[in-house]
Amino acid sequence: MMLKELRDQVWRANLELKAQKLIIYSWGNVSGIDRDKGIVLIKPSGVDYDTLRPEDLVALDLEGKLVEGRLNPSSDTPTHLELYRQFRGLGGICHTHSLYATIWAQACREIPCFGTTHADNYYGPVPVTDPMSPEEIEVDYELNTGKVIVRRFASLDPMQVPAVLVANHGPFTWGTTAEKAVEYAVVLEQCAHMALGTLQLTPDQPEIARTLLDKHYLRKHGQGAYYGQK
Amino acid sequence: MMLKELRDQVWRANLELKAQKLIIYSWGNVSGIDRDKGIVLIKPSGVDYDTLRPEDLVALDLEGKLVEGRLNPSSDTPTHLELYRQFRGLGGICHTHSLYATIWAQACREIPCFGTTHADNYYGPVPVTDPMSPEEIEVDYELNTGKVIVRRFASLDPMQVPAVLVANHGPFTWGTTAEKAVEYAVVLEQCAHMALGTLQLTPDQPEIARTLLDKHYLRKHGQGAYYGQK
Amino acid sequence: MMLKELRDQVWRANLELKAQKLIIYSWGNVSGIDRDKGIVLIKPSGVDYDTLRPEDLVALDLEGKLVEGRLNPSSDTPTHLELYRQFRGLGGICHTHSLYATIWAQACREIPCFGTTHADNYYGPVPVTDPMSPEEIEVDYELNTGKVIVRRFASLDPMQVPAVLVANHGPFTWGTTAEKAVEYAVVLEQCAHMALGTLQLTPDQPEIARTLLDKHYLRKHGQGAYYGQK
Amino acid sequence: MMLKELRDQVWRANLELKAQKLIIYSWGNVSGIDRDKGIVLIKPSGVDYDTLRPEDLVALDLEGKLVEGRLNPSSDTPTHLELYRQFRGLGGICHTHSLYATIWAQACREIPCFGTTHADNYYGPVPVTDPMSPEEIEVDYELNTGKVIVRRFASLDPMQVPAVLVANHGPFTWGTTAEKAVEYAVVLEQCAHMALGTLQLTPDQPEIARTLLDKHYLRKHGQGAYYGQK
Repeated sequence: MMLKELRDQVWRANLELKAQKLIIYSWGNVSGIDRDKGIVLIKPSGVDYDTLRPEDLVALDLEGKLVEGRLNPSSDTPTHLELYRQFRGLGGICHTHSLYATIWAQACREIPCFGTTHADNYYGPVPVTDPMSPEEIEVDYELNTGKVIVRRFASLDPMQVPAVLVANHGPFTWGTTAEKAVEYAVVLEQCAHMALGTLQLTPDQPEIARTLLDKHYLRKHGQGAYYGQK
Repeated sequence: MMLKELRDQVWRANLELKAQKLIIYSWGNVSGIDRDKGIVLIKPSGVDYDTLRPEDLVALDLEGKLVEGRLNPSSDTPTHLELYRQFRGLGGICHTHSLYATIWAQACREIPCFGTTHADNYYGPVPVTDPMSPEEIEVDYELNTGKVIVRRFASLDPMQVPAVLVANHGPFTWGTTAEKAVEYAVVLEQCAHMALGTLQLTPDQPEIARTLLDKHYLRKHGQGAYYGQK
Repeated sequence: MMLKELRDQVWRANLELKAQKLIIYSWGNVSGIDRDKGIVLIKPSGVDYDTLRPEDLVALDLEGKLVEGRLNPSSDTPTHLELYRQFRGLGGICHTHSLYATIWAQACREIPCFGTTHADNYYGPVPVTDPMSPEEIEVDYELNTGKVIVRRFASLDPMQVPAVLVANHGPFTWGTTAEKAVEYAVVLEQCAHMALGTLQLTPDQPEIARTLLDKHYLRKHGQGAYYGQK
Repeated sequence: MMLKELRDQVWRANLELKAQKLIIYSWGNVSGIDRDKGIVLIKPSGVDYDTLRPEDLVALDLEGKLVEGRLNPSSDTPTHLELYRQFRGLGGICHTHSLYATIWAQACREIPCFGTTHADNYYGPVPVTDPMSPEEIEVDYELNTGKVIVRRFASLDPMQVPAVLVANHGPFTWGTTAEKAVEYAVVLEQCAHMALGTLQLTPDQPEIARTLLDKHYLRKHGQGAYYGQK
């Protein structure tokens, strides 16, 4: 079996979706990529997390050709592959229908940065895609889901804003590893919940000041970071 | 004891109501039917899930005549029987007072399809019944509850929309098995919660586009389905 | 030690407050009464549930004279005693600051009966007391809390509406036993949560029809009841 | 290793943040002080609670000079130190991004005292700081966070209102011990949730009467207190 270490990481990251209550039943999926070999490992379609084993993950190349595996890959696989092709820094991708992030996606609204919890993780609002056209939905729907995400990031750095809401659907998050992609999904759920509550208290609440966004994002990320033990 | 296998399935499906936090105390009930024998198994009335045993389920024919059992069947039994008589594809039925689905029922509003989570499971809005008339409430209340549900589905396919809200009361869900009926109750609770949040963010949020509804419902259900391992 | 059986019941009912997540830390209290002996057992003040033992409960007569016990009784004891003196059917009383019931109490609004979940348990709205006057607050506050509750029930049967919201404070519930009082506190929390959500969806939602209230309350309570196994 | 007893208390108080679901991942921090020795113990920066050991806590003097420890202290350390320097009664400080308290902080609103749950713990509204200026954010941000808190308490007694919301950020709470600081963070989360719900039901809900605030706060705190076993 190929890619034993990566396989183990991606498998654990998938199980974390359930442990963190981001999904129910067999919903959601996490993938990870070996950039050197150009191979993606992804959850099989419709398999319960309770029975999922590392060897059930499906290995594909970046064009979606099967490399190893006996099960059908997640139906969302073409979305993952498009993101790996276009966003070269990604090591892992996570898709869920977590409650509050999905509420924002269904409301077709980006999540504003209302506080430092958000700013610690996302360098600005979490964007929402345009609605997909009938043509984009009818043919190659999952591939086109990836394309509307990429289009939305034309002027954004996906490594600084590692999350997106697909309109009427739900969130995708990513990171340098599958584990990190899941962490950004957990944090997104918190920020989405906090942002909804914030608007319930102050409907016209503005986003936080640029200096505060910079301070919090940059004290954890980038060259001048001074948070943590590094 | 008759119908050992079905009995075990219906018993497990009842316990799942509590495990999934859809009910408290002895609330709610699940039934299953053996269509060949024309026999329904249903939870006894007012019995706690912690002490419920498979042999406590009550067996009745489709007219409500006792076939086997020492306990009173659920007071909602006439509702279940009416649904089994009129909706021939049903193998199991579930009734709960789960929090968010009941909120929509109490508000006497159908749950619009605001996203793909809903569209993956229900092929359109989850309908709400008309309020019942004093006459329907005073005599044969539980039978009439079944009749107002059936009336609401005059132009709907119950297998494509496996859930309903009884106005001022709560949800009934169903499926080809008792287990599937409970799964649709769990998912309904998620969709009800998401839909409430969606309206809090965007009060005039329209339903999702028809093409997106078709794509998500039909990629999981029907002849062209390509989700899962089948 | 007196009243061993009742003591055990009241002790278990107190622990249930924590198990049902109605309280945090040492908040809340449950009492029970032996009507023949005229003795009330109540939780001691400020004692954590994790360390509470049956022998820690304090025994008092109906005038508040200590009968048995080494600890101070709950500071809310005079409220309990007033309710036992005035409402002769009560066997147990429960006080919590549970989240949603307290939200309604803080908003100084009664909880309307919006659905059958409520109607199955409370025969009409759960009333809220008048705000207490400065005089009522400054002297004999806890006794006066009992008196404003009793005043609110001048034209209500406390056995048919076994719950009240003290304005700006929180809920008291009661029943024929301490266990039943706690059950009504658990159900009240559900109904309070459902009612808030109902108003968020339909702000002018009317209460349920009288016939539906009668049907649900009376099929579980009173002479014509046909719910359960009795 | 210095301060073994205090170290154990502060370590347990940090673990309590996770047990009480006030934080996720490595968010949040608790400190405690030995006033005689002038030494503060605080959580190291970015360390997970699951692996945190008592010996990982960092010991600093009140000016921030390292006394003992191999890890970087929490990035919020200068905030803690400023509070210890200015509020002489503090024995412990707690910082979280707990959900509902953070919602109020993000909405830049103080939490009004709507009920006795709040009045039992905080002798008036929980204040929110002014937004910080760009200059306060850009240089010595964490120290200035402490200063805006102190400024907000110019006419408040921090021992009577042991909590504050930093605008656009989140809550800080404190007490005579680290354990007590965490308890006030848990209670703040409850009060923040209740207050949001209260405004959803009654948007113009006034604060509770002064006499009721006095009665509840003073029956638990100060010379005439009669709550508990003391």
